[in-house]
Formats: sequence, C-alpha cells, structure tokens
Amino acid sequence: MSDAATDAGSATGPDVVGTDTVRIPTLADIETAREVLRGVSVYTPMEESRWLSSVAGGPVLIKAENLQRTGSFKIRGAYLRMSRLSLEEKAAGVVAASAGNHAQGVALAAQMLGIKATVFMPGGAPIPKEKATRGYGADVRFHGHSVDDALVAAKAFSAETGAVLIHPFDHFDIVAGQGTCGLEIVEQCPDLRTVVVSCGGGGFLGGIATAVKALRPDVHVVGVQAAGAAAYVGSLAEGRPVALKSMTTMADGIAVGCPGQVPFEAIRRYVDDIVTVSEESLSRALLMLLERAKLVVEPAGAAAVAAMLDSPDTFETPAVAVLSGGNVDPLLLMKVIRHGLAAAGRYLYFRARIPDVPGGLATLLNDIAAAEGNVLDVVHERTSATLHLDEVEVQLQVETRGAEHADRVLARLRERGYHLSQ
Amino acid sequence: MSDAATDAGSATGPDVVGTDTVRIPTLADIETAREVLRGVSVYTPMEESRWLSSVAGGPVLIKAENLQRTGSFKIRGAYLRMSRLSLEEKAAGVVAASAGNHAQGVALAAQMLGIKATVFMPGGAPIPKEKATRGYGADVRFHGHSVDDALVAAKAFSAETGAVLIHPFDHFDIVAGQGTCGLEIVEQCPDLRTVVVSCGGGGFLGGIATAVKALRPDVHVVGVQAAGAAAYVGSLAEGRPVALKSMTTMADGIAVGCPGQVPFEAIRRYVDDIVTVSEESLSRALLMLLERAKLVVEPAGAAAVAAMLDSPDTFETPAVAVLSGGNVDPLLLMKVIRHGLAAAGRYLYFRARIPDVPGGLATLLNDIAAAEGNVLDVVHERTSATLHLDEVEVQLQVETRGAEHADRVLARLRERGYHLSQ
Repeated sequence: MSDAATDAGSATGPDVVGTDTVRIPTLADIETAREVLRGVSVYTPMEESRWLSSVAGGPVLIKAENLQRTGSFKIRGAYLRMSRLSLEEKAAGVVAASAGNHAQGVALAAQMLGIKATVFMPGGAPIPKEKATRGYGADVRFHGHSVDDALVAAKAFSAETGAVLIHPFDHFDIVAGQGTCGLEIVEQCPDLRTVVVSCGGGGFLGGIATAVKALRPDVHVVGVQAAGAAAYVGSLAEGRPVALKSMTTMADGIAVGCPGQVPFEAIRRYVDDIVTVSEESLSRALLMLLERAKLVVEPAGAAAVAAMLDSPDTFETPAVAVLSGGNVDPLLLMKVIRHGLAAAGRYLYFRARIPDVPGGLATLLNDIAAAEGNVLDVVHERTSATLHLDEVEVQLQVETRGAEHADRVLARLRERGYHLSQ
Repeated sequence: MSDAATDAGSATGPDVVGTDTVRIPTLADIETAREVLRGVSVYTPMEESRWLSSVAGGPVLIKAENLQRTGSFKIRGAYLRMSRLSLEEKAAGVVAASAGNHAQGVALAAQMLGIKATVFMPGGAPIPKEKATRGYGADVRFHGHSVDDALVAAKAFSAETGAVLIHPFDHFDIVAGQGTCGLEIVEQCPDLRTVVVSCGGGGFLGGIATAVKALRPDVHVVGVQAAGAAAYVGSLAEGRPVALKSMTTMADGIAVGCPGQVPFEAIRRYVDDIVTVSEESLSRALLMLLERAKLVVEPAGAAAVAAMLDSPDTFETPAVAVLSGGNVDPLLLMKVIRHGLAAAGRYLYFRARIPDVPGGLATLLNDIAAAEGNVLDVVHERTSATLHLDEVEVQLQVETRGAEHADRVLARLRERGYHLSQ
C-alpha cells in the first residue's frame, strides 16, 4: 500500500541528520525552484466550487493538482531534485521504488532530463500505472509484494550500479519543489484564510505550508491524513518521526508509515493542525468530486475535501482544498464509487430470503418498488447450507435517494416479513 | 432515452415555419447573446490534451463544457431563451420535459430569472438528476416512461396553465445561446483548423458552427452522432428533418429522434461533416478522458473525442474537441467503465468449467496467474442444469493488459483443456 518505506530516508544520504539540525527550504529556495520548473510543471487551475462553498458557508476553491502532468504534484519535486544531480550522477541514472505517483513523476522527469530511470514496483501494482511509467520511458521491474519489498530491490540496485535513489519525500529538493504549488495558491487566491492539503510522507504539505506561511503568516494550514495511516499525529506528539506499526487505507498516495525528517521539520514549524478522515469520508468526497466538480481524483486526492465535508464549520473561508492527484485505477474507481454510494445511503446491498414458490421473487420486487427503491441487480441463489428446503435466497442491489430512504426501504421489507441480511 | 420528442417544436410556436423560411441566428445575434450571458454561464477552460495530441499528430485542445454550470452547455441557451420572455410569460412560468441536462439548465435559468419552472421527467429518471433539478428550485413531476411521455404531460400542463414550454433545441434563442461557446473556442485557439462537436437535436452543433464559420470560414466543423441515434445523417441526405423510427444508445444527451428545424438549417449551411461513433467508441473515449484527462464526461460528452480516436488522421490540427457535458449517473459511470475496459481488452468476463475436486479452483487460478491475468472476482457455482455432476462452473473477472494479452490468457486456458464460455 505504502508509497514509501518505514525506514524512510536511510538511503538518501547526508541531508537526513536528525531533526534538530535538518535543513528545510526557505521561501527563496521555493522561488528558485519555481524558476527551474518553468515549462516543466503546469500552473494548475484553481476554481471556486459552488457546492463546497454552499456547504462551508463561504468561498471554497479547488486547486486541481490532479490536472498536473503525470496526474499528480510529484513531477514538481522529482524534476527539481533530479535537475540538481551532478553530471556523474546523471550518467549513473536514477532508481525509485513506487507503485504509483512517484514512479510516474520520476519517469517523466528523467525523460525530460535525459537520465535513465529504473523503477521497482511491487508485484500487484495496477497495470495502468505500470503502463504509464513505461510510457515515460522508465525501465520498470517488479519485486516482492509491497513497496517496502520494492525499495529493498531499489536500494540493492543503487548499491550495485551507482544509480541515485530518488526518495519520494524526504529530501530538501523534493520539499522545495512541491512547495511551488503553494506559491501558485497564494497568487490565485490572495485573500485566502485556510489551506487544506492531504499528507502522507509530508513532502507536499510541508512544501506548501512553508511557502504559504512565508507569504501569509496568518493563513491557517491544515494537513489531512487517512485515519488508518496517520503517522504525523503520533510523530508530532512525540516531537520526532515515529513509524506506524501497521496501516490500512485505500488511499495509496498517502499510505506512508513514517514521516520524513525534512518534511517533518517543515510541518512541525508551519502546519497548524493535522486532521484525519475515514475511508467512508474519502469515498464520499471522491464521489462528490466526480458528480459535482466533474473531476477525477484518487482517494488521497479527495482527502482535503473529505476533511472539509466532515466539519465544514471549522474552516475559515476563503479556503483552498488541494486535490493532490488523479491517478486512480478504473477498477478501484468502480469500487470507490460503489462504496461512496453505500456510504451516502444511495446504494443498498442485502440478501433476502423468499419462499420458493412461483411469484416469490415478483412479490419481493413489487414490495421494493412500492418503497420506491430502484432495483439494479438481482442474483437468485437456490442452494445454501443455511436455507430451508422451501426457501431461496436473493442478493439485491438497490438504488435509493439517501440514508433515510434506504432505512425506509429496509424497514418496509422487514414489516412485510422478509428475513434480511448483509 | 431521448431528451426530445419526435414531434419536436410543434408546441414552441411561430419560429418554426418550415425549412425554407426558418430564421437562424447570425454572428451578431450570438455576440448579443454573449452579453446577456455575462456572469451567467462560465467561460469554460480549454487546454491542450497531450495524449490526444500524440494520437492525432498535432495539437488537440479539449473545450471542457462539462465544467459549465449545471454540468453541460444547456444553461447558455435556456437562460437566453427565458431572459427574452415577456413579463406576462415570465409570470406564467415555464415548463420542460427532460430526464437530463435540459432539465437542469431550465431549472437554474428559471431560478436566476425568478421564474417558476415545472419539469416533467419520465419515471425511470436517475435519482441524482432529479435531485439536481429540484436543487435548482424546479417543481419536478413524473409522467410515463420516456421523455416523449413526459413531453405529452408538459404540453398538457402548458395548455392548462399558460406556462411557456421551453424546447431543448428547436428555437432561435436556444441556438444563439449555445453558439456563444463557439465564440469562446475561436478566442481560445485563434489558429484552429477543425472543431468537433457532439450532436443530438443539433442546438449546440448548429450554434457553434454558425459562430465559428462566421469568424473563420476555412475551419472544418464536424458533428458527431451516436451510430444508434444518427438522425442528421438521413435528414441531411433528404434535405429536411426526418424522424428516426427507433434509437438505441447509452448517450442520452444526444439520443434525439428528429432534428429541430432551426438547428437543421444552421447545420445544413455550416457543418462540413457528420460522423457517427459506436457505443464501444463512446465508452472507450469516456474511459480515456477519465484516466488521461482526469475529467468526468457523460457518454454524449465523449462523442467528439470518440470520433477523433476512431480516425485521428482525418482531423487537421490544431483541432478542438468539445466535451458537451459531464452529468453521468455514477451507476451508469460504473457500467461504462466496465464496458470501456472490456472494449479495450483490459477486462475479461468469462465462465470456465472445472472438475469438482479439491484443488480444482486453485489449479485454474494458477493457470490464469501463469498467463499474467489479474483475477478480480470469482463466483463459484455448484448447480446448473447444463453441468455434469462432477463439474462446477466458475464465473471470472480478470484484468489484462490489453486485447492481445486477453487473447493470450484465453488461448492458454483452452490449451490447458478448460471449457470456456461468455
């Protein structure tokens, strides 16, 4: 799941020298980064979202970093980092471990800089991400079953060939590069009061926070983590990066087990709050962005909007929600849509037992129609160890108008005597 | 399916007086419309699509009218039309029949103009579209099972209450309003050579063609219809609007059985070609827009891109593909994604018979894994009239890398002796 290893940074070298002495970018560093990135990264659009504004009670703008080249912000930091390699390092090539956005950012940056890139992916990586990374000219290799496994192979490759390992977030240049997004945000909404950014390893949040606070010290900067992978919560409490023991989230873009030293330091200084969001919130937010904003985001890309929808009153407006990326496998997208519909009560999945007599199913369907449920799919199952001989079980998918209507449909069926289960 | 009736225009009044004498907007009319729409419709973004450009061998820009207010271009024409009603007409209110974009355009325009709107929808209309239309303050009523049924009710309502029926496309002001999108396109890409626009009743295509040809007579204007609902093909051959006998397409936004008189006249004069696209092309294009451009479009909104992907060499660049709308029910979106993956050979659905012995399923899954297919779902079915007693049937969903790989997976399983079926 994770785009990073829990021993983050151990192979990236001398910039990681402990929290007390770690060097983080300044506004000037980020402004210099912007010059390097001119013509490389896209100045992504930022538009007011009417529906989010109406929920929040004031203007909310969406920064569409999902429309960035390679589909996420990663190209900003990856290009800056690699543009600063020495001639010998460039000749030796680069290597990275990633199943997702970092892979594509490194691959495109390498192509633009004429550097050979090798990317290690875990075995189960989605086919579209593999194809996209190869499409940018990288040599993709598979190793193991997790990004941590792939990182072991990447480090071995680096030791063996001299290729430079490009860490996804724990490097001065990576944080400086991601920070250029913060410069754009302040330009696009000079009177902003709040900026909300998703956070995994912290490169993106740390970079944006550094830029925004330097320009507008009074702006509230909020980071958002998936509740099942919220390493920053414990780490900030401890005052140092602390690795999680386990993680569970579908938001692979922010599933990172341990903060990086460089972004940790930036976030400790410049971020006002870290909040967490549930998988249900992520899927609901992703679905709302699809339906209302007509924008495709990956689960991590929906995190800032999920946080705003969870507690809209806590964000002073004008607020900016950053959509960090849009690289979502269509198969995962289908699952998240279904999950989002279910989380919003707009989609019911249940089983009902009906008598095995002619008209049994027709009666059930009439009862659902009377409750104004829209039947999407029916699977009729005749045999099961737990069924009586004169019963059959039916699996149903029903579209409803929302949570209240879904409850009404189920209550009505129970009233009519059906035995229902999930 | 259709957003319009086959007796289109019969209730809209004196502007429909036969093809020879029908009055169509001029450039000046469209420029005036633009003044009326200032602050009402959004000047939608138009950006180059790198992947479409690489397919077409030259710059292709995407005009993102799916990001328009109400999610489609319909607000342009609906607002212009309704802004020109007399005070008495405004007081009497408006009525429309639609299951989709026109409903939302009329509802928002009415809300902005302080006019009461009643919208008749067919019984099976997607719940999100009903909710969106109600959300703009319209009184939504259900009648019958098709948009034609709903139109009957809308006409009766108009006759009874004096409410003005707002036709979805067959009106001078509707065509003039939609044409404002053409002014934006020419401004956003002054050196364009080709513009490709989806076409149902023809209001959008006719309006854009009128504006573009007036400003750039040498630009090639291409209309795109769904092959299963291509009324313009026969109508242009006949020289007059001819109703289709039947239609089948998932692209409800362009499922119109008969051209309107006003748009027909504009299209006859100004459109160079009408091409048709299959349902497979529409679903592939929609999926590519989701994956590559990170934009949500409805099936009709993908038509221009589908046409360009079908025969990229026939469109001189710089070319503009207009995404007409983004209002797609998430449930339909899931179906189209699945269909698009299947059409691109990236998703296999099949049944296999296996011996009913311990390890039977495991062996099958190993064989699929050896062919590098990624199993997404397995349904194990023990009983079926056509199975031998010692067989079970398994339904499989398998992700593949493309058509060639899908063929390889199936061939390998047949070699291994499995009996496969769809």
